[in-house]
This record gives sequence, structure tokens and C-alpha cells, in this order.
Amino acid sequence: MTFVLGVDIGGTKIAVGLVEFTGAAGADSAGADLAGIDLAGGARVVALASSPTPAALGSAAIVAEVVRVASGLLAEARRAGHPVAGCGVGSAGVIDRATGTVVSATSSLTGWAGTPLAAVLEDRLELPVTVLNDVHAHALGEALAGAGRGCPSMMMIAAGTGIGGAFVTDGLVWAGATGLSGHFGHLPAAEAAGLPCTCGREGHLEVIASGPAIAERYRAAGGDPVVTDARGVFARASGAADPIAERTIETAGYALGRAIGGLVNSLDPHAVVVGGGLSDAGEFWWSAVRRGAAAELMPSVAGCPLVPAQLGADAALIGAAAAFVRRARSPAGDHPAAALGHRVVTSS
Amino acid sequence: MTFVLGVDIGGTKIAVGLVEFTGAAGADSAGADLAGIDLAGGARVVALASSPTPAALGSAAIVAEVVRVASGLLAEARRAGHPVAGCGVGSAGVIDRATGTVVSATSSLTGWAGTPLAAVLEDRLELPVTVLNDVHAHALGEALAGAGRGCPSMMMIAAGTGIGGAFVTDGLVWAGATGLSGHFGHLPAAEAAGLPCTCGREGHLEVIASGPAIAERYRAAGGDPVVTDARGVFARASGAADPIAERTIETAGYALGRAIGGLVNSLDPHAVVVGGGLSDAGEFWWSAVRRGAAAELMPSVAGCPLVPAQLGADAALIGAAAAFVRRARSPAGDHPAAALGHRVVTSS
Repeated sequence: MTFVLGVDIGGTKIAVGLVEFTGAAGADSAGADLAGIDLAGGARVVALASSPTPAALGSAAIVAEVVRVASGLLAEARRAGHPVAGCGVGSAGVIDRATGTVVSATSSLTGWAGTPLAAVLEDRLELPVTVLNDVHAHALGEALAGAGRGCPSMMMIAAGTGIGGAFVTDGLVWAGATGLSGHFGHLPAAEAAGLPCTCGREGHLEVIASGPAIAERYRAAGGDPVVTDARGVFARASGAADPIAERTIETAGYALGRAIGGLVNSLDPHAVVVGGGLSDAGEFWWSAVRRGAAAELMPSVAGCPLVPAQLGADAALIGAAAAFVRRARSPAGDHPAAALGHRVVTSS
Repeated sequence: MTFVLGVDIGGTKIAVGLVEFTGAAGADSAGADLAGIDLAGGARVVALASSPTPAALGSAAIVAEVVRVASGLLAEARRAGHPVAGCGVGSAGVIDRATGTVVSATSSLTGWAGTPLAAVLEDRLELPVTVLNDVHAHALGEALAGAGRGCPSMMMIAAGTGIGGAFVTDGLVWAGATGLSGHFGHLPAAEAAGLPCTCGREGHLEVIASGPAIAERYRAAGGDPVVTDARGVFARASGAADPIAERTIETAGYALGRAIGGLVNSLDPHAVVVGGGLSDAGEFWWSAVRRGAAAELMPSVAGCPLVPAQLGADAALIGAAAAFVRRARSPAGDHPAAALGHRVVTSS
């Protein structure tokens, strides 16, 4: 059986998993290789290791920690006689998938921008390595082996610290012209009118619907100043029956639902999968999301399923490993269009 | 040289063109066939015929008129010694691309829903035929041979009687799970809050930004009752310096621009191409569209070009012909995911 190493590099945690594609054509023969893997046939993480991200220590320290954690799992796999075909990485930041380089990243990952991640990991792990954005990896994992399994296309919404996601068709993530596709939190939202957004504009969904936004809007509406995060707002909405908390969550969920409805009208996906921290926040939030979507969906696409993600943190590991398998089979790239630096418009 | 027949069936006009792919590898040899065509190499309509759509007379009459107009062009091509490899149709309505059947259509095309268009045209024209939605065909034409030429991905916005469009990647139109992708006019728009939409919901972009909406909003705002269509509102804005006309157009363009900005943030296309009747309405409208987009675009994607369509009505003919070439080469379909009837979600 052939395994692929999946790596998820986030702002707080590095996770590494040994991913088995259970739909492999020759799954029970030792000789099965990448060509025999059926990506749509399911996948699971059979061994897992993780470590805090040394985010403040710079690129070299982060890479060293990834190598340390990955090497442990690789040694374990080899002891068990399992060949590991390569390594797929999902990393925070904007990724140039053609080269596996980090184009840009938030300042919380010190020095991460510019890291030639695929090249340095290939050198250190002595395995072929591909890299994609972590949210894109997460979406691909859910599409292939999670809540979107069996759907020819799927829109993933990751609602947590930010509102992001990805659009997946035919098992391919659309990365975008500049690697930024999936910034659904930067759709205009009437509920956020006038509020400044993290991106520099204003009135975007993210400033009303993300976790930090829920805490912020709760405080701004005169909520209990003891509450400092979204978790606290959710606790007060259910436990203390705090009407300000309820209204804040209702508005956040409804606004997200409206945006989802507009996206479904625009792109007609086979399903919408909602993950991220907020998707675990319970029925009160989900009900607002569903009502918001229902208010916008054209009757002809109203049957589009809106379902919770299933794989949790495993999704990014599976998606990153799947992206590696794809790329190894087709070195020109999944979506040729996803190669960066192609803004060309013919003049009229 | 091998030609492909392109057909555009709209509510008011049937157009048929003989499409030449100028990027054909063997363009000047008589033996060039479909396999030799470079779809990204450009295309043009070398002969054109059209006729009013007998929309009220039912499906058989519409098909008969298409056959009559197409047969004339086919005879002309054959007289000139040009082989015609097949026929690509762009038709109003929701199309099942796998079978070339009209799934549903507006009531203005009497009896059009249910027409097995590919099958009946194949029989009557004695050519292989493929069908896609007319707006999707239009977008594909602009992507391959018009304003989007050279862009690995492109979002087309068609702003006219409605607000529609398509998302094109790698020369493929994303048709959607139910064939409805590209209904960008059904994104929520703050400027349309409370106004009923044609789709049955309310507050959608289309009721503030489409041509009929511009006329309707102008009248509702107390504009000159003599004005009955968008053309009249535009004339008053430029000629009569009517402040209500100016404000109505400003709001319509700005709302469309904001929606475009949100879509670019969400999908990061290589370019946005704006066509349809309103795109010919001049700089006053365009300037509002650009300002609306600029207000929403994240700085990192603000460089995405926003350009007018170039091909006019030829776009749908070229796009339909290109979709035929694609399908003829790959009978399983462009986007396997675009086959309809695949709403499957694994239960958790």
C-alpha cells in the first residue's frame, strides 16, 4: 500500500498525517502506486503527529519543525514497511502552486513570505513535495473524502477567524489568478455597511460574520464587557439567554447565509459545505445561516445541499495529499490556469 | 480549411455563422480537421445569416427556422469547397449539455422546454450537434477569441435585459449543477433592498442594475413618464441632463460594480469582461461600474482587468462552435462535473 504524507502548516499548529487513499485500485497489494489511486474513492489519515508552529521564529525555524515532525512519521511508516510516495503541503499564505513558493503571508508567520517551501522540503525530506494554500487543501479534502464526496462540484465555506473557502470542480481547487480565490468574506454584506474591513475596504461579510467579528459586534452593541471572544458570545446566547448575544449571532449567521445564497445563484455548485470553528457552534447559528441562504436562493437552485464539514482538521491533510497525487500524475498542473502571473488581456 | 457552424437561438433572433478557427494548426491545408484546431488561437465568423425567432409558434417552428437558415449557410460553404465539421448551438434556456436538451426556458419561447435540440438538429442537418446555454456560449467566445483571449480564466458579465454571465477557466464554461451557473444578477445588492426580484426573492442586483430595472427605477423615482426603456434614461442623462436619470444610472452601475468586486474577491479571475446592451451605454455608466468595483476589491486583486466585450453578437456563435470542437474531441464532456443530475451528498 502506498501512502502520501499530508502536512498542514497553520499560524498556531503544524500537523502531519500519513494519508491512505482507500479507493486505491490495488489497495491491498504492496505494489500499488500513485497511478492506481482513485482520488474519489475516499481517504483517511492513518497516523498523525503535530507540534506548535514556531511562528515568531522565522521561516527556517518553521521549516525545521515541519521536517522534524514529518521525519518521525516517515520513519514510522518505513518501519511498518509502507512506502511513502511523496508529500503534499497545505500552508497558510498565498502559494504559487507551480513552484511551491509562499508568495505572501500574514505577519503572524514571521518571514514566511518568500519561502521556497516545496524546494526546501524536497531537499530535507528527500521526497517530491507539492504545496497549496491551507484553506484550498481543506476544501479539497472535504470535496474528495468528506461532506462533498460524490459531488462533481462543491463550494467550501470555512467560517472561523476569517471567512474563506474554495470552489472545487472535478476534484480540482480553483486557486485563482493570484492564488487568492475563496475570499468569500470580502463579498459586500448589507449588514456590515460602513464597518471597516481587515482588507482596507468596508462593509464586507467578514466584519460581521467571522468569529472575531461576532465578539466585536457583541461588545459594540453593548454586550457584557467580560466576553472577549465568539465562544463567550455563543455561551451567553445559549446559557444566559442574553438577547444581545442572540441578536449578534443571528445577524452573523444570517449575513453568511445570504452571501452563500448569492454564491449558489452565481455558481450553481452541487453542494455547499460549511466548516471552520463557527460550524461547530450549534443549531442556533446554523438555523440563521440556513434562513439567510433560503432568503436569497432562486427557487431553481434552492435544492442545493448546505451541509456541515465532516473531516475536521484531517481535511487539509487529505486535500494536500490528494493535490500531491494529482500533480505527480500531471506535472503541468491541475488547472493550467491556476499558474500565477498570467494577467494578459488583448487590447481592443 | 474546416469550418464549424455556430448557432445562436435567442428570444428575438436566430443567428447562424460559419466559424473559422484562425489558430488551426493546419489552417491553410485542406486536410485540417478538428484535432488540428487551436481553440486559443483565435476565431472569426466568416459568413453570417439571421432571421427573427418565431418565438410564439412553438418548438417545431423555431427548429424549422434554425434548419432553414443553417441549411443556406451550409450550402454556401459546400459550394465554396469548405467542409463543415459540425454544429455548436447556444440557446436561450437551461440546457442539459450531456444530451443537448432544453431543460427549461422562459415562457416567451413557447414550448421550448423539453426540446431535444441536439437530436433534432443532428437529424435535420446531418451533422453532429452540441448545445449549451446562449450566455455561456457568449462568455466562451469572448474568453477564447475576444476580450478574454490569452486569459487562463475569465468572468463574463452580460448586462442587458437581465444580469447574467459565466465563469470560464481553461477554455471551459462552468455550467453548474443544474445548468444555471452565471446568474450573477441574483446576488444580494444593498441598493436593491426590499425590491421584489423576477426570481421570487427580493433585493437582488438585477432589479436595480438591468436595463428594464433602470427604466423602472427611473419612473419610480419620479422621472419623465415619457421614458419607457433604459435607452431613454441614458439619452436623458446625457442630452437633457436629467438628474433623476443620472442618479438612476449611477446607482445601477455602482451596484453592478460592487457585485463584480465581490465576485473578483471570491474567485480571483484573470479578467472580468463586461458585455450586453448596457456595456455600450457609454462612459457615464462604465465610470460608475468601475467605481463600484474599486470600492470592494481587496488591494491584492485590485489589478484584475475590467474590460468591455469585443465580439458583440459574434461571441455566442464562436463560443458555441468552440464548445462543439471541445465536445467532439472529448465526448465525455468538458467538465465532467457539468453533467446534470449529480446532487449527491454522503451522509455523515
